[in-house]
Amino acid sequence: MQELLNLGAAARDAAAVLGVSSVAQRNRALEQMAQALEKNADRILEANARDLDNARKAGKSAAFVERLTLNMDRIGSMADGLRQVAALPDPLGRVLDGWKRPNGLCIEKRTVPLGVIGIIYESRPNVTADAAALCVKSGNACILRGGSDALLSNAAIADLLSGALAEVDLPAGCVCLVRNTSREAAQYLMGMREYLDVLIPRGGASLIRSVVENAKVPVIETGTGNCHVYVHAGCADLEQAVAIVVNAKTQRPSVCNAAESLLVDEVLAPSFLPMCAKALWERGVELRGCLKTQALLGPKVVAATEEDYFTEYNDLILAVKLVSGLDEAVAHIRKYGTRHSEAILTNDYAAAESFADRVDAAAVYVNASTRFTDGGEFGFGTEIGISNQKLHARGPMGLEQLTTYKYVVRGNGQVR
Amino acid sequence: MQELLNLGAAARDAAAVLGVSSVAQRNRALEQMAQALEKNADRILEANARDLDNARKAGKSAAFVERLTLNMDRIGSMADGLRQVAALPDPLGRVLDGWKRPNGLCIEKRTVPLGVIGIIYESRPNVTADAAALCVKSGNACILRGGSDALLSNAAIADLLSGALAEVDLPAGCVCLVRNTSREAAQYLMGMREYLDVLIPRGGASLIRSVVENAKVPVIETGTGNCHVYVHAGCADLEQAVAIVVNAKTQRPSVCNAAESLLVDEVLAPSFLPMCAKALWERGVELRGCLKTQALLGPKVVAATEEDYFTEYNDLILAVKLVSGLDEAVAHIRKYGTRHSEAILTNDYAAAESFADRVDAAAVYVNASTRFTDGGEFGFGTEIGISNQKLHARGPMGLEQLTTYKYVVRGNGQVR
Repeated sequence: MQELLNLGAAARDAAAVLGVSSVAQRNRALEQMAQALEKNADRILEANARDLDNARKAGKSAAFVERLTLNMDRIGSMADGLRQVAALPDPLGRVLDGWKRPNGLCIEKRTVPLGVIGIIYESRPNVTADAAALCVKSGNACILRGGSDALLSNAAIADLLSGALAEVDLPAGCVCLVRNTSREAAQYLMGMREYLDVLIPRGGASLIRSVVENAKVPVIETGTGNCHVYVHAGCADLEQAVAIVVNAKTQRPSVCNAAESLLVDEVLAPSFLPMCAKALWERGVELRGCLKTQALLGPKVVAATEEDYFTEYNDLILAVKLVSGLDEAVAHIRKYGTRHSEAILTNDYAAAESFADRVDAAAVYVNASTRFTDGGEFGFGTEIGISNQKLHARGPMGLEQLTTYKYVVRGNGQVR
Repeated sequence: MQELLNLGAAARDAAAVLGVSSVAQRNRALEQMAQALEKNADRILEANARDLDNARKAGKSAAFVERLTLNMDRIGSMADGLRQVAALPDPLGRVLDGWKRPNGLCIEKRTVPLGVIGIIYESRPNVTADAAALCVKSGNACILRGGSDALLSNAAIADLLSGALAEVDLPAGCVCLVRNTSREAAQYLMGMREYLDVLIPRGGASLIRSVVENAKVPVIETGTGNCHVYVHAGCADLEQAVAIVVNAKTQRPSVCNAAESLLVDEVLAPSFLPMCAKALWERGVELRGCLKTQALLGPKVVAATEEDYFTEYNDLILAVKLVSGLDEAVAHIRKYGTRHSEAILTNDYAAAESFADRVDAAAVYVNASTRFTDGGEFGFGTEIGISNQKLHARGPMGLEQLTTYKYVVRGNGQVR
């Protein structure tokens, strides 16, 4: 594990320099990084071709190969992403708060980088550039550990990024890539408390679970969203409600902020549910419903099991349940939800406010699709992931969420 | 482990109620809790007498017995503590930020409780009341797991607190105490991700290390402080500097914000170090120094080893090192420090600002004692501990640090 210890030491040293660099220098670094990718696209594509070749030989699925594939467009997107991050405001050195104590001490709470961030991800090589961009901008060194199938692509990208950093007099160690992609090395990395301040896993549920359960370094858990749309009796615009349900379910079913369950107030169900089901069926959505839903919509609706309500389908399937009102909807979400994104559709003021207060989730929506839980949609300009835990950051994580703070305390001889 | 699962479920249910209760109700609860302790002091003292008896029979040290001991004064302090927390501002429902997106979505970032907080602590039974107070005020249910030696005292206190909650119509499950104090139960508790949102260990280094290494629930690490006072060449008031060094080392040597090392610029050492050493020796401090320190101060100074500079003595011992200037001081602190509290004593503006920027610590002081890193001293009114990690909270943790946030997003039909 000497490779990892060397990377850890390099990243620590680099973080000390990067953490006090000016935003101008960090932005110059991002521009150099973008240019390095553009100018050396052939080198990246060559490495990627070898990864793709290995993946095909290993019999990987077409979807897997697609995720692994780079082309000029995707390299252009990575470079654009670096420049977009450069254009964002500096998250460092902001004074969050400050006050003077009766004894004269002046306390200032100021944003600073986290330090060294470990990122463990899967087969998309663009994560290498995206994650590096966010870390560099926020003054954090990063240790990137991508999937073994993308190693050659990731190495080509990471080498170009490190080289670009050196050109603006920042340490190459600001962006480190782990080249030993063994399980043991990942395990070792997750225990490197001396070198890593935080670990962020990006990928599927099993990757995230493995990191959460094995890491000794503090983790920010991203991931699972079993999101609900609740159509309340006070919903006044049923066509709008149908549009929101359709959007939340079908606009991109594979992502964590897509809706997985639809709750409908019983009194509204006869007028709402048939039109909503029609629109969903037209888009190929399978409905799994409670007995009352089946009674209303007929045999095309599969019976929903207890398991269905717990499931994040990530697919064109929607569980449906009629509820007696707000209390049952809130209780259902509390039992089955994953505290990610939850929506109520209503024109009833008291119901909207009560739902917003009582539902425990990173984002609670009134009359909008759950699909907006996203760094870009929130206006953060970008995101490193969507936190599904309560510690440190909740919901979309942009640059601000990659910082911590320090207290600077100025005195003139104070003692206790 | 059925006991723990039952406590977990009770705490989860209680948190849902407590989290949306009014601050008036939470404050009434705290007052009831204070009265319950005062009115039933005899019951607490009786339980404590049995704990003390067992501790003495088990041959525990006098210091241990002292920490375990309750009396009317200490019970009064617990009640006062509950009332002081009641008097603090509500940390919940504060709007931290808010903005409108171009598509019309109104996003509001609002403080909410973390949910269920697990607290693992050692032999001081007053922690039971102190921790419960902070959790109730911040809308969090808590599962308290104290040391086995204090079980009867803790149970008496926790029963009174739970009973008081019921009197103001809050669930007794807001304050849960684990009565199985086995190692296995602690281990199991640390893995209860379904029920606990965060774990906070309070106690000695070995307890904290054990929690950090074994927990699957997110942990806030509190603890080790290897703090430095650096006397810079530009220090203009040497008597003030001596007073600060003496205070940082001796005012309460056993705590994490006490100084463990003194760094002195070489050019200042001949005028500063002898007077500082004299003051420290008068207070019984043992000095362990580098060769140059020994040359200046003579044979009374023990030679400092590499290990000394890494050590948090928590005792009347101070490591001393002469340095060539700011850069060496910053490098030394980076190598040996634990990022807790670091001080520079100087009248040089540039040196002060550079030290504040470059030293990575929860609190960086200019011309003040490191002993101020404390919730009370920072003006938080109270504290649950001092975080020594960068995730979520850094430095003293008051009520605000026991909250997270949710986004409430109000729309009028937005879809992606």
